Amino acid sequence: MARRKKVYEGSAKILYEGPEPGTLIQYFKDDAAPAGDQADAPPQGALEGRGVLNNRLSEFFMAGLNAIGVPTHFIRRLNMREQLVRMAEILPLEVVVRNYAAGDLSRRLGIPEGMGLPRPIVEYYYKDEKLGNPLVAEEHIIAFGWANQQDLDDMVALALRVNDFLSGVMLGVGVRLMDFRLEVGRIWEGDFMRLIVADEISPDSCRLWDMRGLDTPDREGQVREPGPLADVYTELARRLGVLPSNVTHTPKPTLIN
Amino acid sequence: MARRKKVYEGSAKILYEGPEPGTLIQYFKDDAAPAGDQADAPPQGALEGRGVLNNRLSEFFMAGLNAIGVPTHFIRRLNMREQLVRMAEILPLEVVVRNYAAGDLSRRLGIPEGMGLPRPIVEYYYKDEKLGNPLVAEEHIIAFGWANQQDLDDMVALALRVNDFLSGVMLGVGVRLMDFRLEVGRIWEGDFMRLIVADEISPDSCRLWDMRGLDTPDREGQVREPGPLADVYTELARRLGVLPSNVTHTPKPTLIN
Repeated sequence: MARRKKVYEGSAKILYEGPEPGTLIQYFKDDAAPAGDQADAPPQGALEGRGVLNNRLSEFFMAGLNAIGVPTHFIRRLNMREQLVRMAEILPLEVVVRNYAAGDLSRRLGIPEGMGLPRPIVEYYYKDEKLGNPLVAEEHIIAFGWANQQDLDDMVALALRVNDFLSGVMLGVGVRLMDFRLEVGRIWEGDFMRLIVADEISPDSCRLWDMRGLDTPDREGQVREPGPLADVYTELARRLGVLPSNVTHTPKPTLIN
Repeated sequence: MARRKKVYEGSAKILYEGPEPGTLIQYFKDDAAPAGDQADAPPQGALEGRGVLNNRLSEFFMAGLNAIGVPTHFIRRLNMREQLVRMAEILPLEVVVRNYAAGDLSRRLGIPEGMGLPRPIVEYYYKDEKLGNPLVAEEHIIAFGWANQQDLDDMVALALRVNDFLSGVMLGVGVRLMDFRLEVGRIWEGDFMRLIVADEISPDSCRLWDMRGLDTPDREGQVREPGPLADVYTELARRLGVLPSNVTHTPKPTLIN
């Protein structure tokens, strides 16, 4: 097997050149993302097999989005740790959608964790690890040329469609989607440019609370409070029926030369 | 208990006056809808307990939509067969959203059942049982004053948001949302009019195909083809965790005088 050209290596993923122009291979690592690496990310730790589960979960969500006409970079999963994706020009922004107060929003604005927001709030964070990925307003984005007004309008529409879909998926399996973040990329189809969902959708990009069994007291008569989904990678994959031992569609591993 | 005033009785539901102005009580019957009663409805039969399950399922979907900011008529479930809803002026149209070809679309246009559509298709049917609820185009709707252009734009936006959400819920539990229909109503908040989702969202308004276990051959080595979800009321309620014996939030039954 010829050595593949590495295009980028981050804390959680490696990108290699793909087999055709305009494609990349996205490899999921098990490594923990270093603290402060991502805008308002849920706590992360190194976990054996995390890359395998994130690869499957991201496939599940992205393929579902593709099927309802929300464009993503996902083409197909290649093997346990890799997927084929479209190459896109990634905007230097993280888009965060919040349905319930938590994390950074609660800390900065003094809103209790778990409180429902009057409407979903879309936020932007400027991607610069050295600066700690600071929150920015549309004004900053346009003034500094990170995106134009049309991009912002398209990003809001894209992010809200993903929110509707993903909230539905999670509700179906007893999980509340508190907030999540997206990376957005630009692709060209002839002269036509459009924005697509890039990177990954997984427990590393979503804050998930478990809503099952809140009314069932335990032996001591205690009722569980809503809170983070425990063992989030495995439990989410299990509920969605995509745990590796349990997968209904396993594409055959493809060797990439 | 004083006798309640019946406002409307259809084949599947009864509407009673609600406890407060602007509200109604929606009662779910077990009766089968007569053939030809609804635009391109999946086959329906009388089924003991169907009303109870549709009441719970419609609560589940409508409450989920309310939570992500898609307005519906649903206020709260009152008991096993009744829910409190907002009174709305129902438009004389059924809105059908199709993701995969099936039923009426396949028959009329010769498209094989189960074929994915290039994009979700929104259709309108004029609600008139004597006429068999005929398909109509936007031109007819505007010419005959059943709705105006702004209503149509709002209906498409509403229907597509419901489609994104509902496709997600179903995908989460291994079910493909082939198509579904919505009723839409008008409500006024002061001088401000808006459209909301009315009626019900249940197996009687959704065509659902089971996508679980398609790769697992049976003892004869046969692989199941995708097709309608069997025992759809019970199975969907079971997968979503809202079967009556299994409910996590059971509102106390409320007596309405």
